[in-house]
Amino acid sequence: MSTRVRDLPTPALIVDADLLAANIATMAAALPGARLRPHVKAHKCTSLARLQATAGHHSFTCATIRECEGMAAAGLGQDLLLGNEVLDARRLGALADQGARVTLAVDSDATIEAAAAGGVREVLIDVNVGLPRCGCAPDDAGRLAGLARSRGLAVRGVMGYEGHVVGLEDAAERERQCRASMELLLAAHADVGGELVSAGGTGTYAINTWANELQAGSYALMDVAYGRLGLPFHQAVFVLATVISASPEWAVADAGLKTMGMDRGKPELDGAPVWFCSDEHTSFKPPRAVGEQVRLVPGHVDPTLAYHERVYLVSEDEVVDMWPVDLRGW
Amino acid sequence: MSTRVRDLPTPALIVDADLLAANIATMAAALPGARLRPHVKAHKCTSLARLQATAGHHSFTCATIRECEGMAAAGLGQDLLLGNEVLDARRLGALADQGARVTLAVDSDATIEAAAAGGVREVLIDVNVGLPRCGCAPDDAGRLAGLARSRGLAVRGVMGYEGHVVGLEDAAERERQCRASMELLLAAHADVGGELVSAGGTGTYAINTWANELQAGSYALMDVAYGRLGLPFHQAVFVLATVISASPEWAVADAGLKTMGMDRGKPELDGAPVWFCSDEHTSFKPPRAVGEQVRLVPGHVDPTLAYHERVYLVSEDEVVDMWPVDLRGW
Repeated sequence: MSTRVRDLPTPALIVDADLLAANIATMAAALPGARLRPHVKAHKCTSLARLQATAGHHSFTCATIRECEGMAAAGLGQDLLLGNEVLDARRLGALADQGARVTLAVDSDATIEAAAAGGVREVLIDVNVGLPRCGCAPDDAGRLAGLARSRGLAVRGVMGYEGHVVGLEDAAERERQCRASMELLLAAHADVGGELVSAGGTGTYAINTWANELQAGSYALMDVAYGRLGLPFHQAVFVLATVISASPEWAVADAGLKTMGMDRGKPELDGAPVWFCSDEHTSFKPPRAVGEQVRLVPGHVDPTLAYHERVYLVSEDEVVDMWPVDLRGW
Repeated sequence: MSTRVRDLPTPALIVDADLLAANIATMAAALPGARLRPHVKAHKCTSLARLQATAGHHSFTCATIRECEGMAAAGLGQDLLLGNEVLDARRLGALADQGARVTLAVDSDATIEAAAAGGVREVLIDVNVGLPRCGCAPDDAGRLAGLARSRGLAVRGVMGYEGHVVGLEDAAERERQCRASMELLLAAHADVGGELVSAGGTGTYAINTWANELQAGSYALMDVAYGRLGLPFHQAVFVLATVISASPEWAVADAGLKTMGMDRGKPELDGAPVWFCSDEHTSFKPPRAVGEQVRLVPGHVDPTLAYHERVYLVSEDEVVDMWPVDLRGW
């Protein structure tokens, strides 16, 4: 393509190809190969996952069955972990039948029975390490592993997501709580066995030295929330918008809350939160001229990507590629 | 289809067909025919718009060019208003060339020039009536109408969205501020001329007696925020989720913040806000058993629909239809 960023129809999701490459290289140096199991939920894009594979990571984490299916269809199904519970695993069994390697998180008798009934071959025991979400009680992990094995499932180890820790802005507190969570996970692992101790996210990638694989995803593109943590990753994704209306006091750009995840707060423009977002508008001060382009930094990357059909790769002022966001839906 | 709700894969967006029909009937009785110009941004679904047309409304409001294109393609392009500014109107001119009637909001010299250059025939002057978003200063509306006419554009009247008013929970204050906004709009209309005075939303549909057409959209499906206003519309849309994990204290359902607009706060379950949402999970108390279905009420309907490829129409326990959410994207 020889399109210039200036000529893109807006709103558009753009990714700075150079900053993305830098982020991927930084992470691959810190956590090479299988030490990182990139989480595709942050980008939902097989083209981006392929860059992560080129950087040496061939095992991936998914949050939905659709993400597993899309990764397998893209030839990236060498070692997929669905790090989430499901009660109907038949689509995952079908993927395994077709040659993908799919490991499923289980945390209860019901999810183990569903895995076995659906034709899944391999599981991880999902352990609650402090985030009030999924995961069994740590002292129940060994029993569940035994149940899974009795159903013919191979148990590859444990996972435990310290999601209550990854976003803590106080680095010392983040490290202290990460250790506490991982001590729970390692105790469970002693009862479960298997080669995998899977945990972590972008906020703990450098301090979680207990897990033997990290599930970070946001590092590739980043967002306002992760930007506060002082990590060595660059903001690489932006919502490109055009100023369509301006008053003496404010301006309005043509990208609103249907282009961005809002659960962690408003997007930023030039380092400061915007005034407010409506469905298809963002109002901000001080104003700029009608016709100017602006680049909004989303508050939360994962639900931002999920709104977009495609992302434009840009390098300086040029559009260098267009990637479908092909892992959306369920 | 003879599918039961119980058998739907989750997460899924479901609409109660009976409550939707009641909402549409209630609104059509209050604002019959052209008194309502339903806003499709709330549902992004031509199948739902067709029900609104069947109820007598043949003019529609859109927020994006894609919405206009989709409505025209569905045979619902009899009188489309793009109630938003654009700087490249060529796709709208093309729609008009193909026989759709498209009226475009303009609020500046630049947007008037874009309308004319793009082949648009008809415009409304968008007037700022208090919401700090788009719209010209009220005393500039007459000049802009003259400019538009000098460019060969037919000026059909004015629009002015009292978006700062529609969500006020104090009904008396809502009415007072609505009047103040509409006095500004009527003054502008006196300078502009034309047959249309277009304004309003679900929160002011019954009290805005100054506009001659109302742009309400949320009334059809509703959400937590509009549910607080004491309007005669039922909550008709839900995110259907399955409990995939449960502890003695909480449960986790398999629908998260990628299934719902979060900008107006958390979804509700059984009349109370849930505990918290993650990308693909909602944690809530008290717990329920693994395998149970729950129906989450989204905080904000518009960005909720925008996340889903399809919506299932349900009547009691049966799935009676499936509609594509076909107006997504830009």
